[in-house]
Amino acid sequence: MSVTFPRGFLASGVAAGFKASGRLDLGLLVADGPAPAAAAGAFTTNAFPAAPVTVTAGHLSDGRARAVVVNSGQANAGTGAAGIEDARETAALVAEHLACRPEDVLVCSTGVIGPRVPLDTMRRSLPEGTAALSAAGGRAFAEAILTTDTRPKEAIAEAGTFRVGGCVKGAGMIGPRLAPARLATLLGFLTCDAPAEPALLEAIVADRVVPVWNAVTVDACPSTNDAILLLASGAAGDAPIAPGDPRADVLADAVESVARDLARQLVADAEGASRTLVVQVGGAADDEAARAVGLAVAASPLVKTALLGADPNPGRFLQAIGAAPAAFDPAAVHVLLGGEAVVRGGVVVDPVPAACERAMADPEVVLSVELGGGPGAATVFGCDLTEEYIRINARYRT
Amino acid sequence: MSVTFPRGFLASGVAAGFKASGRLDLGLLVADGPAPAAAAGAFTTNAFPAAPVTVTAGHLSDGRARAVVVNSGQANAGTGAAGIEDARETAALVAEHLACRPEDVLVCSTGVIGPRVPLDTMRRSLPEGTAALSAAGGRAFAEAILTTDTRPKEAIAEAGTFRVGGCVKGAGMIGPRLAPARLATLLGFLTCDAPAEPALLEAIVADRVVPVWNAVTVDACPSTNDAILLLASGAAGDAPIAPGDPRADVLADAVESVARDLARQLVADAEGASRTLVVQVGGAADDEAARAVGLAVAASPLVKTALLGADPNPGRFLQAIGAAPAAFDPAAVHVLLGGEAVVRGGVVVDPVPAACERAMADPEVVLSVELGGGPGAATVFGCDLTEEYIRINARYRT
Repeated sequence: MSVTFPRGFLASGVAAGFKASGRLDLGLLVADGPAPAAAAGAFTTNAFPAAPVTVTAGHLSDGRARAVVVNSGQANAGTGAAGIEDARETAALVAEHLACRPEDVLVCSTGVIGPRVPLDTMRRSLPEGTAALSAAGGRAFAEAILTTDTRPKEAIAEAGTFRVGGCVKGAGMIGPRLAPARLATLLGFLTCDAPAEPALLEAIVADRVVPVWNAVTVDACPSTNDAILLLASGAAGDAPIAPGDPRADVLADAVESVARDLARQLVADAEGASRTLVVQVGGAADDEAARAVGLAVAASPLVKTALLGADPNPGRFLQAIGAAPAAFDPAAVHVLLGGEAVVRGGVVVDPVPAACERAMADPEVVLSVELGGGPGAATVFGCDLTEEYIRINARYRT
Repeated sequence: MSVTFPRGFLASGVAAGFKASGRLDLGLLVADGPAPAAAAGAFTTNAFPAAPVTVTAGHLSDGRARAVVVNSGQANAGTGAAGIEDARETAALVAEHLACRPEDVLVCSTGVIGPRVPLDTMRRSLPEGTAALSAAGGRAFAEAILTTDTRPKEAIAEAGTFRVGGCVKGAGMIGPRLAPARLATLLGFLTCDAPAEPALLEAIVADRVVPVWNAVTVDACPSTNDAILLLASGAAGDAPIAPGDPRADVLADAVESVARDLARQLVADAEGASRTLVVQVGGAADDEAARAVGLAVAASPLVKTALLGADPNPGRFLQAIGAAPAAFDPAAVHVLLGGEAVVRGGVVVDPVPAACERAMADPEVVLSVELGGGPGAATVFGCDLTEEYIRINARYRT
């Protein structure tokens, strides 16, 4: 259960033929209430945003959406004006089936950058996709959006009487630098049935979802297609919720917990990954500085290979922290692994304590980086770099 | 021939025992003229500079040096106050043997971060190292500074009547962000016999050497120990050369050509690398923006694995260019491979021309990125990412 756990949503996933593999590759998510859902998003900051990113950001300008359509196989990126036309036509085709405005359809694509999305395939498959829409369709939707992922990633939470659900795809080209009204080929879809106003959804995306997903890295590559969308059907009833409402925080907490759950699932299913790394950074000047330090550690090829080798290598942690684009006092830096220091006051603990050696062999390694006295903190999710990542990417044209 | 090609320098390399392998691991380079050599350097901007970086930057403050001592095996980084003492004591020990001031001895270390340099080993081996000093010692010196490198990297050039030589080490943890009077575990040593003033050497390091070596990437990891040093013995005779002298440009050109030659050799010998990538960026707002775009391409794991797979993947080039921290007009971007466009006006050429497929299989792949109308340009050197890089770094504690 994921995007259809909240009331007021239907979803489907069918095999349209965008992927040569014959797997599910066309996902539809529809808010089937009397009015369109409130909606907000965040998109890639890559200088070459994919056509669906551009079109969808425009369609979100009124904070309302009726449907999301996703194809996996072609990213519709690097496709110029023709790609924009294709994304618009996709929205129009879906709108026709759902009897809604094209502007209420949000379009996402993922797959190979360069080739156009075959619209004939889209046209041919939309009847099947719309016919398959159901309140049990969340899983099929979560499968249809995958590329090199090995499994769907879904999460749910409850916020009082409200329900929150979500799914995410992404296994490579993952190092999002999302911005609200711009966000990456991370594709994340979050739904809730709270009667949230668009302004509240925008705030939750900016303050709760973007910080979580901008702190995820597989290969530090911000995609042309990264996008997260948050839709609220309002189907749970109750009075509208605007920012400042006491119910808003409860909802935001639930959305954030779903986003974090999905982030952790994402790195666990990253291309070739065998183990995950959680970097908890504290004592930074601000949260952004903390995230920069955590990402510098989690994205370092030398830390990632040390993780693969279960090598609690304090020198590599130190090197990566020191190269981060953040200001801190080097002499105040402590790094802990398995509860014991491997770096103390900026100095490597030599030899490495046995507890650290053991902790580095865990399936999920938690590294704590304490920078000093600041209030900034962040949790960054990463994974190891393996021979399998290289085989996947030296063979597969993504 | 390398650092001893210019007159006025002696060098040696001996097996002191810093490395467990028994290979050469103590290098000495000495300016043996009547006066110390003029000297300038650039060092890592990592927040945790190694002790020898700190000590050597201090010793360079008068623009003069008599000797350089290098040990390979321990980086003397992350070693705190004890490491600083060890680096100072190393300089003092060398000064004793050469009957010079400790401040005229420049100290460099490379190897594992964390452990201290064993000073007993240093003490025991300096007599052998100084006894072995000779005008033919450049090769032994170039070998003694290596770690995971598979071969020494040397280059020479002539500038009128002057000679320029150099050697470099570095195969992993290479993504220098050097700054004059701060530079990375790239270690580069350049010598010349011109009577260059320290101010001229400083200018050549800042304007000609740093831009070349900051445009080199193996794994985008700026080391704690990166350092380049340029020494001028003056042994060729002639009147002193200050900035602005007509001879200065000729000398600077020769130094730059040696630096570039060494940069190319470095990526060719990078950890696990099987092929090299040269990214030529033009039309940027300035040279720094050009370098940022080139590095974003050359450092991308997805471009590096495409290089391994000989896959002329325009989407990955586009993604990497678009993620670079530089401003440009996306619609003006062209990318050429083997003389033909794979990206034209920001749009992927689909399918990729056959000439591009062939060019991507070359041992050295040259990618041209044209950003638009600006005057900025840069040449960036990179390499592929292979299973062997992972094996080296998942096993070896660097």
